Amino acid sequence: VRGSFLKRSRRLILGIGDDAACYKPTDGFLPLLTTDLSIEGVHFDRHYATLEQIGYKTLATNLSDIAAMGGIPRYFLLSVAIPPDSQVKEYKRLYRGMKRLAGQWGIVLIGGDTSASPQGLFLNITLVGEVESEVLVSRSGARPGDRIYVTGTLGDAAAGLEILKKKRVKRESKGRSSHLIRRHLLPLPRMEEGRFLASQHLATAMIDLSDGLATDLVHLCEESRVAGEVDLERLPLSRSLRNYCSAEGRPVYPYALSGGEDYELLYTVREGQSRRMETLFRERGFKTTEIGRIVSGRGVWIRTAKGRLPLRVRGFEHFV
Amino acid sequence: VRGSFLKRSRRLILGIGDDAACYKPTDGFLPLLTTDLSIEGVHFDRHYATLEQIGYKTLATNLSDIAAMGGIPRYFLLSVAIPPDSQVKEYKRLYRGMKRLAGQWGIVLIGGDTSASPQGLFLNITLVGEVESEVLVSRSGARPGDRIYVTGTLGDAAAGLEILKKKRVKRESKGRSSHLIRRHLLPLPRMEEGRFLASQHLATAMIDLSDGLATDLVHLCEESRVAGEVDLERLPLSRSLRNYCSAEGRPVYPYALSGGEDYELLYTVREGQSRRMETLFRERGFKTTEIGRIVSGRGVWIRTAKGRLPLRVRGFEHFV
Repeated sequence: VRGSFLKRSRRLILGIGDDAACYKPTDGFLPLLTTDLSIEGVHFDRHYATLEQIGYKTLATNLSDIAAMGGIPRYFLLSVAIPPDSQVKEYKRLYRGMKRLAGQWGIVLIGGDTSASPQGLFLNITLVGEVESEVLVSRSGARPGDRIYVTGTLGDAAAGLEILKKKRVKRESKGRSSHLIRRHLLPLPRMEEGRFLASQHLATAMIDLSDGLATDLVHLCEESRVAGEVDLERLPLSRSLRNYCSAEGRPVYPYALSGGEDYELLYTVREGQSRRMETLFRERGFKTTEIGRIVSGRGVWIRTAKGRLPLRVRGFEHFV
Repeated sequence: VRGSFLKRSRRLILGIGDDAACYKPTDGFLPLLTTDLSIEGVHFDRHYATLEQIGYKTLATNLSDIAAMGGIPRYFLLSVAIPPDSQVKEYKRLYRGMKRLAGQWGIVLIGGDTSASPQGLFLNITLVGEVESEVLVSRSGARPGDRIYVTGTLGDAAAGLEILKKKRVKRESKGRSSHLIRRHLLPLPRMEEGRFLASQHLATAMIDLSDGLATDLVHLCEESRVAGEVDLERLPLSRSLRNYCSAEGRPVYPYALSGGEDYELLYTVREGQSRRMETLFRERGFKTTEIGRIVSGRGVWIRTAKGRLPLRVRGFEHFV
């Protein structure tokens, strides 16, 4: 590990090599902390994910959490438990996958733990970010009247996983399925969008989509003590997902509503700010779609041509 | 989880329930971060450790790392992967074991992740502490002439593990072995000693003993770019360990030199400060023993009646 990630950060006082790491916080910023497990047979399957992809995705999912707070990622700690009858050297490929993201966002590995694992590969990352107190966006600031937005498109990752499970191949697929597979294996954390929304005080509440729109919108609404209405017709769908569903003869909405691991940002904006936000996003080339609105009460509802129905919360189940 | 650990900390801005936790740092303090894995079949065996003991020890080993920096523990993040065919409810016992330590040191659970585990229980804790920059003690400050000290006694935990492995019993043993078993299952992190040594500027370098004296003294000496000499006759040994070794007909020194998981503090003190440190420790009821000195050069040596021999580094192997 030594080397690549350990490029000297002037603010890093002690990194790997002591009992604990120590850094000098940025003036006026608060620490943000998030942690995520990534377990073979639960979060990934080595039949169709490479070690580089596993490393990348574990770090990406943590980055997505910092993005959802409006924060800037700074440092991470990595715990790895390596299964028997495998070459420790091989696991350097995990770091290679992380290096790409770490370089892109300027984050530094400052600590960790390694161990044998009796069976299967286990990863845990704790990511430390920073945010100004006046910029921090929680899940609890949504108010009735706010518009609900989501970045990117929905349901792609779930479809990508489905394709991988059918094929059980560990390589880039061609054609329409490759986009969906990439969305599952190599999610793009929406760092710039999250930071922009927070620093411009455009988002009143924000969450990243790990469990699926239905589940995560419930989390946001519960923390904000409000209800949400989503317009089914407005859900942003990729051409790849539409093509896949039409070829497979399946409805597209279950993917968009319940598909997990898209790692898009779901956020709310005051009604009077929504046009400004859309304009600013367009200028920056960020993709976002208004999908509904916050109303008073509790629960999450879906509006279709048939009227308003309660949205059954069923997050996309990880493949085990 | 909600409840017990989540006693409101005025400085905690966002705890469990958002994408990331956020806290207000103490003025004049720097953040400290450490992370430790605890894996069934590697770090613990449920044949002879209860879930309460496993929870306690995982948090204790992280606390010990903060103690070795001279820091104050504040918050922790807990990742747990639970094996199949087990009751999730049962795992509340992990928290019960942690609660005791968390209460004692005023630390608050601020985040985490839970998952299924395909096999065996996996824990990972990231502990956040704080320390003033002028108090922080690293592994790298030892200089030739410094005296080497260790808190408590050495080798007990390794003997305790040996007894447990022979007996494979999950209960408190009676008689002389119970102290040794407790030392393995319920290590006492030396929080007060570490903080006192650092805040009084008494320790020039410090490390906690997780891998065993031989291995950890090498780490300290390497980081400080010095050599160490340990007097075999001065190693602090408990009466329980002496009795156990004499009953088993085994030499005691391999336990003291290579036995892991004692979680005592190994530290160095300027020669001119050593008497003062000893006096202050005695006044506070802290146990410490001078075991050798730092010299120039590299390597770690053991001084016996036969002269100076290189100390073979062989850390106590975790039981797999």
